[in-house]
Amino acid sequence: MAIITLTTDMGLKDHYVAVVKGAILSQLPDTVIVDISHSIKPFNNAQAAYVLRNAYPSFPQGAIHIIGVNPELQRNTVHVVVKHDGHYFIGADNGIIPLMLEGEADESYELTMKLDDDHVAFPVKSVFVKAACHLARGGVPGTIGRRISALQERIGFRPLKDSMSIQASIVHIDAYGNLMTNVRRPLFDEVGRGRAFRINFGHSDDDITRLHSTYSDVNDGVCMAFFNASGHLEIAVNKGVEGSGGGAARLLGLRENDTVRIDFAERSKG
Amino acid sequence: MAIITLTTDMGLKDHYVAVVKGAILSQLPDTVIVDISHSIKPFNNAQAAYVLRNAYPSFPQGAIHIIGVNPELQRNTVHVVVKHDGHYFIGADNGIIPLMLEGEADESYELTMKLDDDHVAFPVKSVFVKAACHLARGGVPGTIGRRISALQERIGFRPLKDSMSIQASIVHIDAYGNLMTNVRRPLFDEVGRGRAFRINFGHSDDDITRLHSTYSDVNDGVCMAFFNASGHLEIAVNKGVEGSGGGAARLLGLRENDTVRIDFAERSKG
Amino acid sequence: MAIITLTTDMGLKDHYVAVVKGAILSQLPDTVIVDISHSIKPFNNAQAAYVLRNAYPSFPQGAIHIIGVNPELQRNTVHVVVKHDGHYFIGADNGIIPLMLEGEADESYELTMKLDDDHVAFPVKSVFVKAACHLARGGVPGTIGRRISALQERIGFRPLKDSMSIQASIVHIDAYGNLMTNVRRPLFDEVGRGRAFRINFGHSDDDITRLHSTYSDVNDGVCMAFFNASGHLEIAVNKGVEGSGGGAARLLGLRENDTVRIDFAERSKG
Repeated sequence: MAIITLTTDMGLKDHYVAVVKGAILSQLPDTVIVDISHSIKPFNNAQAAYVLRNAYPSFPQGAIHIIGVNPELQRNTVHVVVKHDGHYFIGADNGIIPLMLEGEADESYELTMKLDDDHVAFPVKSVFVKAACHLARGGVPGTIGRRISALQERIGFRPLKDSMSIQASIVHIDAYGNLMTNVRRPLFDEVGRGRAFRINFGHSDDDITRLHSTYSDVNDGVCMAFFNASGHLEIAVNKGVEGSGGGAARLLGLRENDTVRIDFAERSKG
Repeated sequence: MAIITLTTDMGLKDHYVAVVKGAILSQLPDTVIVDISHSIKPFNNAQAAYVLRNAYPSFPQGAIHIIGVNPELQRNTVHVVVKHDGHYFIGADNGIIPLMLEGEADESYELTMKLDDDHVAFPVKSVFVKAACHLARGGVPGTIGRRISALQERIGFRPLKDSMSIQASIVHIDAYGNLMTNVRRPLFDEVGRGRAFRINFGHSDDDITRLHSTYSDVNDGVCMAFFNASGHLEIAVNKGVEGSGGGAARLLGLRENDTVRIDFAERSKG
Repeated sequence: MAIITLTTDMGLKDHYVAVVKGAILSQLPDTVIVDISHSIKPFNNAQAAYVLRNAYPSFPQGAIHIIGVNPELQRNTVHVVVKHDGHYFIGADNGIIPLMLEGEADESYELTMKLDDDHVAFPVKSVFVKAACHLARGGVPGTIGRRISALQERIGFRPLKDSMSIQASIVHIDAYGNLMTNVRRPLFDEVGRGRAFRINFGHSDDDITRLHSTYSDVNDGVCMAFFNASGHLEIAVNKGVEGSGGGAARLLGLRENDTVRIDFAERSKG
């Protein structure tokens, strides 16, 4: 049984996700379909990349991941299937996949298979499902696409840095109100070189000057920072705000796409 | 493996949907259960009909669709199973199915099977699941119901029209804020007869006077109208409102059940 | 095929739930995974207990229920697997399971199996999934845990009572705005002894002085009380508030954790 996962911004109230599932089951009735998220903010590539990067490694090798965010064909945006790390990813070449992989994909293909007439209106259903079912049946990407050398990178999603600071973005806020930044450990270590630091939120009382290991290292309701299981610098409040699920986002007044600055001290510690 | 889909207004936070799934799996452990939507607005028949009409055709023939909106037995409302277009629909005879099918159903049956004592409290679980599992095992509707000649139509969901205009309703607003009206192409053509038209939203700056083919025919953030994949006149904003998912609904200040008037010109074009 | 259900406060927008599902499917690809709810209010044990108690009995014997609310190991909180009523429950010994079962569990075990290094960061994935898959393969709890005599009860979730009144809490508000209290029939009968009663909401116009059997016993929009399918005293409005799904919660201005007092008359009726 093949596994096909779905990551989209379609939400759960409409018929769109069900149409995609029906289309898969019409072709391959015994596919295991798993929702990764349908609550990506509409058209938000950075959030889609963040969520899928953190979800896909827990699935078995051979899993097929459909990316239904900004899926439209455009003049400079083709449809692609990517094989990486034993997993398949199907989507538009809109920047999500390179951002998610943070590096070169093992193999990339532009989809060239013949399409039904209705492919423009709903490409997730009529293009990506068709490609996914081909792979789920054991077909290889080369039969439905032509190898390309690289995917398109879109700038603007990476943190800015100089010798003294990193300018991070909030790429995702989770259900507990925890803030996920686009800063990962290697960048932090490269710029910081072991120096003292200050994570600024614009009101100095809340500044964070040390890292913890996990939520429960601090008391309930206390704000802290740590590199989370996915390697991202996360700003969190242990147990969030009782009863509200508000957590760090509400406490610090931050939203997705907001900037967080990390300043490093002039000289190394000790 | 049979497919049973669920369309309800039960939401996802409570135990209700899980109870229905558990009841199905207790009878038939290898059923494929697919959520169409559990976010129909409570008691909103028009929205249930809209969502299910657009979802069911993508499922394979033989799929069984449970409709858990206004499911209660009432003095003039029986429980029914309908076979149409190779699909089964199970629900109350409350107007949803005729509205969804926009025409006569192929075969309609009033459910007459013997019921457990608790059928009043939770008919979706104790009546519809029982009927669905009967069909999923390959049983025919005639064993659990008696053929009836027609379903009950409930008025009030269809657009009003005269020779010069159509008064449409917003039956559904999707996750991107796109507005789905209850006007479909044949009605539009019948009343319009090729004349120029104006879709009014109460503030003339936003009036729409032409149809497009799909979202990307206009620039991001521009409001447009087109007949969508399901044949409905849809008012949309390409790429919605960046970051908010607000789209046309917010821009035009419209909600479900609001009215939209389409006025046609005195004389034909050209 | 084994059934594993999930009850968590993780929400549906993040990757957390998908990571858990991927971990299960990586170990046992043909498991049937059913979401009970991922919308438990963050860290709310009482709501988790309420939802799971009402959901689990509809699943077949042998079903395995993972409880992902407050799952962290703490100084006095171990991880447990409980067998009760033919079902398995896996979670932390944080009070949810005794509250849910309202009595002694048939068999309780503290999990003692060897864990991977990353078990602290995400115990639902790295501890509970491992235990669940052991059971799903037909393993017994005794292989992965040691029998313990009792689970820890946490006080504060039960109604207060004296000879004249019961002080109830709202443990859950459903999608229709119906209010579920923590009062069940035996307690109501024990304190009330058949006397007249008054359910107070702080504004006497809304007081309820009788019980009904089900929603449709009253007209649409009317507020009523009854013992629901799960045995809880429920305050509801038939058909909620048209179009809003607001229902009793909005009408009475009540929220989760709010108190509702039931006063009984001095002397018995008739």
